[in-house]
Amino acid sequence: MSSDSDIPRQDELARERLIDLAAEFYDQFAAGEVPSMQIPTRTKSNIEYDEEKGVWVYGDRHSTRSANTVGGAQKLLKAIYVIDFLQNQLEENRSSTLRELYYLSESWDLDAAQFNSQDESNGLIEDLEIVSHVKREDFHMRPEESGAKVMGPLLIREQTNRGEREIHCQDDVGQGGYQIPNNVDTVEFLDHDADFVMAVETGGMRDRLVENGFDEDYRCIVVHLGGQPARATRRLTKRLHDELDLPVTVFTDGDPWSYRIFGSISYGSIKSAHLSEYLATPQAQFIGIQPSDIVEYDLPTDPLSDSDVNALRSELEDPRFQTDYWREQIELQLDINKKAEQQALASRGLDFVTDTYLPERLEEMGIV
Amino acid sequence: MSSDSDIPRQDELARERLIDLAAEFYDQFAAGEVPSMQIPTRTKSNIEYDEEKGVWVYGDRHSTRSANTVGGAQKLLKAIYVIDFLQNQLEENRSSTLRELYYLSESWDLDAAQFNSQDESNGLIEDLEIVSHVKREDFHMRPEESGAKVMGPLLIREQTNRGEREIHCQDDVGQGGYQIPNNVDTVEFLDHDADFVMAVETGGMRDRLVENGFDEDYRCIVVHLGGQPARATRRLTKRLHDELDLPVTVFTDGDPWSYRIFGSISYGSIKSAHLSEYLATPQAQFIGIQPSDIVEYDLPTDPLSDSDVNALRSELEDPRFQTDYWREQIELQLDINKKAEQQALASRGLDFVTDTYLPERLEEMGIV
Repeated sequence: MSSDSDIPRQDELARERLIDLAAEFYDQFAAGEVPSMQIPTRTKSNIEYDEEKGVWVYGDRHSTRSANTVGGAQKLLKAIYVIDFLQNQLEENRSSTLRELYYLSESWDLDAAQFNSQDESNGLIEDLEIVSHVKREDFHMRPEESGAKVMGPLLIREQTNRGEREIHCQDDVGQGGYQIPNNVDTVEFLDHDADFVMAVETGGMRDRLVENGFDEDYRCIVVHLGGQPARATRRLTKRLHDELDLPVTVFTDGDPWSYRIFGSISYGSIKSAHLSEYLATPQAQFIGIQPSDIVEYDLPTDPLSDSDVNALRSELEDPRFQTDYWREQIELQLDINKKAEQQALASRGLDFVTDTYLPERLEEMGIV
Repeated sequence: MSSDSDIPRQDELARERLIDLAAEFYDQFAAGEVPSMQIPTRTKSNIEYDEEKGVWVYGDRHSTRSANTVGGAQKLLKAIYVIDFLQNQLEENRSSTLRELYYLSESWDLDAAQFNSQDESNGLIEDLEIVSHVKREDFHMRPEESGAKVMGPLLIREQTNRGEREIHCQDDVGQGGYQIPNNVDTVEFLDHDADFVMAVETGGMRDRLVENGFDEDYRCIVVHLGGQPARATRRLTKRLHDELDLPVTVFTDGDPWSYRIFGSISYGSIKSAHLSEYLATPQAQFIGIQPSDIVEYDLPTDPLSDSDVNALRSELEDPRFQTDYWREQIELQLDINKKAEQQALASRGLDFVTDTYLPERLEEMGIV
């Protein structure tokens, strides 16, 4: 491991914020006060829609974590150990996973500072993100989850820990595409020849689009979500939109769980509402599979299960789906009592999706 | 889609085998016989250990699928439709997923040839693999599952459907590594500078090894398994062993489910015993986490669950684990009643795994 003396500015900023937090505790001690930390309440009742930004953010309610109880004091103690660990990690230009942090606490000299479960250490990292306004990735905390694979007319430069790499996401990669790193902020977009971005839920459909040359024919950057998208994937999608000014489309199965995937890309989630600004792409548009596609194209379907029906009903109440479009589609789906997968389009032939379905939808949406 | 007239030899062979199958039915009809097909019985009782090859293969028991019942006739009809589809697919140099095949059957003119479930179409493809001695991949049937990511001193050439790509799996890839394609037989090994291969179960540990430069320092090709390894991953591991004459090591969590992952790499599985020769690497060696490591390194653990205990007991009976080494380790684990994850090594510091644990184990195993 090289200990890079030329620490990037982002890292320096993250370190300063962490040290500021520690300094606050120090000042509280020095002033003879009981140390404490203010954290926004992270429940559904404290989530607000930010009209201007078009994403979900925490409201005004806060709770105070104070050292005036043994439990509170222990939490602050753990926070200080983690701050110390993180600022060392940044200084040495290293990184670690949430799971490693949990295990690593066993090596700390003070038993009271060790974590009892990974939920506890995960929660503390989220608290520090919120209080310091620094993303977990900027603390160099890596997720377990893998990020997206990208295929499309895009030239990137990635800062790896063994130097820079310039990679064209069609010409320099195999059929599997470019595997984005855990921290996508190490990736710079150098050049592109794309008209829009398409985030695709399933591997089978991603492979179909690549085999059919859809990314070439339609100048499309295909991003494989692989189910519920990782933070890195959502961040990448947002950056492609914001920095390259490209429309973002989302192509999933036609069921309530897939609509939630669309929701997490476009509006963010309760768990990470403090990061909506970094992760959510409010301008993202849903391509399908729409319930109306099931009818129009007579797709092979499965009946809705009880949990599908419940999920659809709860989406009707979800502020993120309060539009005429979504109400109509969800009510139609409850009515026909059917769901369909992306790959069900193959019932019309292997090229139907790229020759007919997507071109028609993209034209309707005004994207091509 | 380019319809390549220069069809690779492998594809030509697969097509011939399919046509041979159809010709057999034709001959049976011509001779006035009721058409039928012989298939090895695919149950645990018909699995044998092939001492010479060191892998699991089907035994001598066969069942006959004959058109003398309506059900049997329908199965043969479906087989013929699939043979027709596959040989067209090969001729046009295209590919599809198992799921697409299932949906595609809805477009067939004869209702009786359509599949009732994906289990049925998957099963038929496996039957055709067995009867024709051709791998699914050579029929150009792609899996849904993603293959491994590779990082290490290896130069490959991949035949993609948009031309050849030469990629060095350290110098030409980002931190995420080289994403192997679904059909790894499109990959040729051009050059390497490696001493051994390490297949790693979890993404967190894979990232740790890459961040710590383990692949560079130890001249190691790191293959990320991502849980239960896909067929493409097992095939890649086998080819790295056979073609480059490299020792293969497997590094997983220390629990019965992870030992099964090792088992599927080294000995194959019941479901794909007809492919053991292509997929299994009998020479693969288990690095850990061993139950004895839990004791020796005093790792953080979780207690065994009931299903863990049952899985360990069934491994004691499993012919694949009938060695002194495995009996000792499994009995020790039942005795201490504990399991540990790979990342639990972080309790000794983030570098313990690459500075101490792996070097010690590799030396014990005679690999470095």
